[in-house]
Amino acid sequence: MTAPTTPTVRADFGPATGLTCRECGAGYALGAAYACADCFGPLEIAYEFGGVTRERIAAGPASIWRYAPLLPVAPYAADEPNLAPGLTSLVRADNLARALGMTGTLWVKDERANPTHSFKDRVVAVAQSAARRLGLRTLACASTGNLANAVAAAAARAGMGSVVVIPHDLEAGKTLTTAAYGGTLLAVRGSYDDVNRLCSELIGEPFTQDWGFVNVNLRPYYAEGSKTLGYEIAEQLGWRLPQQVVVPVASGSLLTKVDKAWRELTGLGLVQDSPYRMYGAQATGCSPVAQAFRSGADVVRPVRPDTIARSLAIGNPADGPYALDVARRTGGAVADVDDAAIVDGIRLLARTEGIFGETAGGVTVATLQALLAAGTLDPAAETVILNTGDGLKTLDAVAGVVGPTATIDADVAQVTAALAPTPLPTSLS
Amino acid sequence: MTAPTTPTVRADFGPATGLTCRECGAGYALGAAYACADCFGPLEIAYEFGGVTRERIAAGPASIWRYAPLLPVAPYAADEPNLAPGLTSLVRADNLARALGMTGTLWVKDERANPTHSFKDRVVAVAQSAARRLGLRTLACASTGNLANAVAAAAARAGMGSVVVIPHDLEAGKTLTTAAYGGTLLAVRGSYDDVNRLCSELIGEPFTQDWGFVNVNLRPYYAEGSKTLGYEIAEQLGWRLPQQVVVPVASGSLLTKVDKAWRELTGLGLVQDSPYRMYGAQATGCSPVAQAFRSGADVVRPVRPDTIARSLAIGNPADGPYALDVARRTGGAVADVDDAAIVDGIRLLARTEGIFGETAGGVTVATLQALLAAGTLDPAAETVILNTGDGLKTLDAVAGVVGPTATIDADVAQVTAALAPTPLPTSLS
Repeated sequence: MTAPTTPTVRADFGPATGLTCRECGAGYALGAAYACADCFGPLEIAYEFGGVTRERIAAGPASIWRYAPLLPVAPYAADEPNLAPGLTSLVRADNLARALGMTGTLWVKDERANPTHSFKDRVVAVAQSAARRLGLRTLACASTGNLANAVAAAAARAGMGSVVVIPHDLEAGKTLTTAAYGGTLLAVRGSYDDVNRLCSELIGEPFTQDWGFVNVNLRPYYAEGSKTLGYEIAEQLGWRLPQQVVVPVASGSLLTKVDKAWRELTGLGLVQDSPYRMYGAQATGCSPVAQAFRSGADVVRPVRPDTIARSLAIGNPADGPYALDVARRTGGAVADVDDAAIVDGIRLLARTEGIFGETAGGVTVATLQALLAAGTLDPAAETVILNTGDGLKTLDAVAGVVGPTATIDADVAQVTAALAPTPLPTSLS
Repeated sequence: MTAPTTPTVRADFGPATGLTCRECGAGYALGAAYACADCFGPLEIAYEFGGVTRERIAAGPASIWRYAPLLPVAPYAADEPNLAPGLTSLVRADNLARALGMTGTLWVKDERANPTHSFKDRVVAVAQSAARRLGLRTLACASTGNLANAVAAAAARAGMGSVVVIPHDLEAGKTLTTAAYGGTLLAVRGSYDDVNRLCSELIGEPFTQDWGFVNVNLRPYYAEGSKTLGYEIAEQLGWRLPQQVVVPVASGSLLTKVDKAWRELTGLGLVQDSPYRMYGAQATGCSPVAQAFRSGADVVRPVRPDTIARSLAIGNPADGPYALDVARRTGGAVADVDDAAIVDGIRLLARTEGIFGETAGGVTVATLQALLAAGTLDPAAETVILNTGDGLKTLDAVAGVVGPTATIDADVAQVTAALAPTPLPTSLS
């Protein structure tokens, strides 16, 4: 943890007015800082919003930049080189709802259409904008894979350097993709938590002076990018909030930011104040927040991750306690599912809605199912689940499980034979 | 080849009025037919367009369905279960233009944001709509991979059956993904052309009575879906046409349909009539159309494909002669590039614009480069290139070529050492 050392910059951060400590409330000027000098608590963006209307948002770009008046970015952020993520589909999932016995409307917020196919493009776009304002020329990050893709691609598009640090044993779909964008990619023998620690240490080094670690010293800006998922859900529902939402939990930041987005929209009168329950989804092999929820603890005890859901494998989640708070305050829960259930979740979503999600998506679907089975989540209430990533990046998870129905010669008789034993799937049984 | 045998169906196909033979002009009622009973020429959709305005299109859905008044679909097609593809980004590619020495504006129409990350989602959506009108309950196809994904996903979403037939040696990124959607997947020991022939034979079989082979007996509808790429480019340029476009050529259909879209828009007065040159891009390992172009032939001689660009590996391209016609009529060309150049093309696009395209995208970028070097394409003219698919599906192409800069322990000194030999990339050299 380091205190803010970046000199005050009077750059245009739109509605953002400063940084505030989430724990003690101390205020700081906007800069590349993330921890309070007094109490080491995390710093958050402080805002003064003005003139934000539904009409103004609707008239904006078809990307996260339509919400620029609610983000720590200049009004011209959309016009600087970036990947323009966001405004992904909110898909009505009647087939999945039926398969799960839900009677309320179920929606999937599907993040696969983002430029590198995960929600990380959103947070990186906001961090990249902040890096520009702060004069930082290289984007860096510690990543479990999706962020690696997003940082390397965003840097390439903007002609910035990139230094991406990952655990050495990530999926090829994440490693090769990152490398293709041409920045520096460092594979570290260790876990994500080791990688994260290394990046914190690097921040003190002279050669990283003009680096912005998107999820370390630019974290206050970066994290705000996740709010756009919450804004979009509300706007796509016709400017209202759902009754329940299931969000995958890695650092815990995404869940807290969707909540923040909805409280902001309510406060600004853009949506009617209506109660919602927030549910967190974890893999049993890395479920520190779910464990804390179950045991009634306020403290999240770090774990050593062991799960196929690599993108959620953060054993020491920075925002875990805050995610716990939100789940409890809203009457939700945090639960977890094992790796077999995750694979089933991936397949269920693909088979019912034609959405092939990442392992994290499988975690979310399987957790939805588990919460329904436990009677913790209301099957009759309108529910949104977040599919934050793409199955193409985690093919290993399904590699041993799905495959061709048959391998045959180019012969009609062999087709007939191949089809005979198994009747064709015609419904969603 | 079979003559139209499906009984006449008086279903709502929007502006479509019938099927017309492209060769002899014979007319047929709308049905699941694709070859003329008289001359065996390919059948095309005949239309009577009415009431199509820029305003009506702009007020439509954020998908291909905004162009429903120009497609063989009912006005309510958007409301039936489908994956709602289209309206992908047209990305201004200043970095790539600079790297290639182009002074005219260069755009990349980036199809990766489609539901299964290729332009095939467009054609399948239109074929699926036709299948519904014709009472067909199972979507089938012969595929080099991208179409397999698109058909399996679209069928899953709509609760239809699917039978996907592919060559047995496709990339895992295409095979596993297709299998995840849960339909029937048949891997055939043979080439795509063998697979295609098998599907034509299957159409006569009684057990395929209610199957719609999207790219065989639904081909007239299916192929029209590619027009939406042309419509979108024109709309996204502010209702005007570019001067040059580079399109990857597999069957040749896509190139001809972009041309058709632009001629329709011109005919309807939606864009001003302005000249454009259409260029086709092939892999040298499967370049029958480029070979015909170079030799001045009208006939496209089939070849046996041998290239990493599997999605373009159609040795006997159905629309090859028509693509040739369009390239010649518009003053363009059809050229090809070898596999090494394809990999370089993938990397160049990723490094300069943060777009990680499929091998077909690499073919397009590399062909653009080759056409510029040959003086065949004007570096000062406004140019659009099509990135039709996603690099995540063809990771093998870059697997031996890109990778981590270094593998290290979680130690600052090792980071310093890893960075020392190679300076950080800061520009697009």
